[in-house]
Amino acid sequence: MQRYDHGGDIYRNQGVQLDVSANINPLGMPPAVREAVMNQMDTFTRYPDYACDELREAIASHHGISTDQVLCGNGAADLIFRICACLKPKLALVTAPTFSEYERAVLVHGGQVKYHLLLEDALFDVDDTILDDITREVALVFLCTPNNPTGRLIDTDLLARIAKTCQAQNTVLVVDECFIDFTDGVSIIPLLSACPNLLILRAFTKMYAMAGLRLGYLLASDPALLRRVAAFGATWSVSGPAQAAGLAALSCENWVDTTRTLIKQEREMLQDALTQLGFYVIPGAANYLLIKSEQPLYQPMLTRGILVRDCGNYTGLSSQYIRIGIQTPKINKRLIAALTNMLRDTAHLHQE
Amino acid sequence: MQRYDHGGDIYRNQGVQLDVSANINPLGMPPAVREAVMNQMDTFTRYPDYACDELREAIASHHGISTDQVLCGNGAADLIFRICACLKPKLALVTAPTFSEYERAVLVHGGQVKYHLLLEDALFDVDDTILDDITREVALVFLCTPNNPTGRLIDTDLLARIAKTCQAQNTVLVVDECFIDFTDGVSIIPLLSACPNLLILRAFTKMYAMAGLRLGYLLASDPALLRRVAAFGATWSVSGPAQAAGLAALSCENWVDTTRTLIKQEREMLQDALTQLGFYVIPGAANYLLIKSEQPLYQPMLTRGILVRDCGNYTGLSSQYIRIGIQTPKINKRLIAALTNMLRDTAHLHQE
Repeated sequence: MQRYDHGGDIYRNQGVQLDVSANINPLGMPPAVREAVMNQMDTFTRYPDYACDELREAIASHHGISTDQVLCGNGAADLIFRICACLKPKLALVTAPTFSEYERAVLVHGGQVKYHLLLEDALFDVDDTILDDITREVALVFLCTPNNPTGRLIDTDLLARIAKTCQAQNTVLVVDECFIDFTDGVSIIPLLSACPNLLILRAFTKMYAMAGLRLGYLLASDPALLRRVAAFGATWSVSGPAQAAGLAALSCENWVDTTRTLIKQEREMLQDALTQLGFYVIPGAANYLLIKSEQPLYQPMLTRGILVRDCGNYTGLSSQYIRIGIQTPKINKRLIAALTNMLRDTAHLHQE
Repeated sequence: MQRYDHGGDIYRNQGVQLDVSANINPLGMPPAVREAVMNQMDTFTRYPDYACDELREAIASHHGISTDQVLCGNGAADLIFRICACLKPKLALVTAPTFSEYERAVLVHGGQVKYHLLLEDALFDVDDTILDDITREVALVFLCTPNNPTGRLIDTDLLARIAKTCQAQNTVLVVDECFIDFTDGVSIIPLLSACPNLLILRAFTKMYAMAGLRLGYLLASDPALLRRVAAFGATWSVSGPAQAAGLAALSCENWVDTTRTLIKQEREMLQDALTQLGFYVIPGAANYLLIKSEQPLYQPMLTRGILVRDCGNYTGLSSQYIRIGIQTPKINKRLIAALTNMLRDTAHLHQE
């Protein structure tokens, strides 16, 4: 198997009592999504709709675009791979740190990766120095807003300038907005019409806690570009349960707002508590937080049955950083208590 | 969207009352598989095991091979695409007719396809003339046994000779056994140990009627080759429901035997009835039959609410051929009745 560079690996960490390593909505799967899958079990004997017509129509309607501007995939990762399989970029620009599937997809399809290093001093923000890195040799740019694992949003005016630069030199720009609904940030979907080279990546997996069902989608202004990307996927790549769940998710009123309100409240609580414990918390906008500590926290936390995301395998970070997914108030308190105990034990050891 | 070359498209044929165009087990999904998915709904909020460890162990144990000889995919089609993405064959050999995803995967990944034409006079059987077509320029060979849509098995001695020829000149041979459990045919899994270039493709989708859940797997003697193929798939490509269903399916005792007995009985009944109606039926061994008629049957059947698989888009066939999936006794009788009525109406029209 390939190297695994992500959170959520409870399968090879069997003693874990609390997993905060993945970035899933702590409210869980909406009951309506769960019911839709259960109620449609009988239809899963059949092949799913390879074209995902009904789901694509619903997504298009949700975003106010047309159906042929939507391509569904077996999770966002599937679409990242299809983009790279299709475009085969000789050189792609990614930020460091960011979600590692971009890099993996570029490399496996024979390309090279150019890193735009984000600096801790600048809160790992993307600023306009990135424009200098989008040279004519760069065939593809991946940007993630809010970025994973920093949680920092990219300024939308800057994104518009980046999109314009990419458009001018025929570079494809992929903006990953998989976590944007957890934030107060604004989507750049309105930019689509002016940017035929812009692809926007979205996912249901996080907001609707259906990571096991796998469902992501790609938006573009140019249906021809989407058709080219689509061709690199196998037929029936989106399962029946994923299509049923996605359709039900889009009908869940207030789910996003309720989630965003909870996440904001808990994020502020966690940020304060973690800062008081002496950690440096990057002020993220998403449903996860990047935390820096003097000593690596991954192993001491695992010893206490808590799985956090060790950021040592992110290009541009080290094991001094961990990422934690924001949970329900009760679990967040448990996490803070565990960290407090761990620090006390460590201090006690040092005093002996 | 890409062109769709398969059966089962009930989504764009809404008036269909009876779909016999796909090759799904007419017994449906085993209750234990259905229950496993329902019972594990709560776990689908989480990321699935990207490595499918538990499922791969169970598959390996089922076939008497080791876990690192198994790679799971999002349906067999996903694995066909990954093989072609990985190997990027400049030239691949496929039979005509056969399952069209092989050709599509080769072409999309920049290769060319060489066809080995199967002849109706020889019941579309693969014979040893195929050895002459496996020249050194052929980097990849796809064979399907029983072949789709003919249902004809490839002689296992011939398969062994083909595998040896491929091995000698470093050609990768993919043998698709997705339907073999419906037949009395024997798997070539025992050949694996002698053939590091052999890949065997299998699926749960057909036998366990879980086409909507998507689950296929690939077997090889060489774990390194499987790892290379695996790298071309996105992380988490096999969903939680697929993994749960696959594990439950492997525990369904007698399911394959019961299915095979029913299919054999109904296949013989259908073959007799269809022959009596004046159709030419290729004597297939699988859970589907290829039927030739003087006039195309697809549209007249659709008018009667019955969706069959028009074989006009198979390389090597024409719309004179249709494929029907074998159903339960009741539905098969309904199908024969509908065909009988159709022929009577047509004869009546001709007499007027």
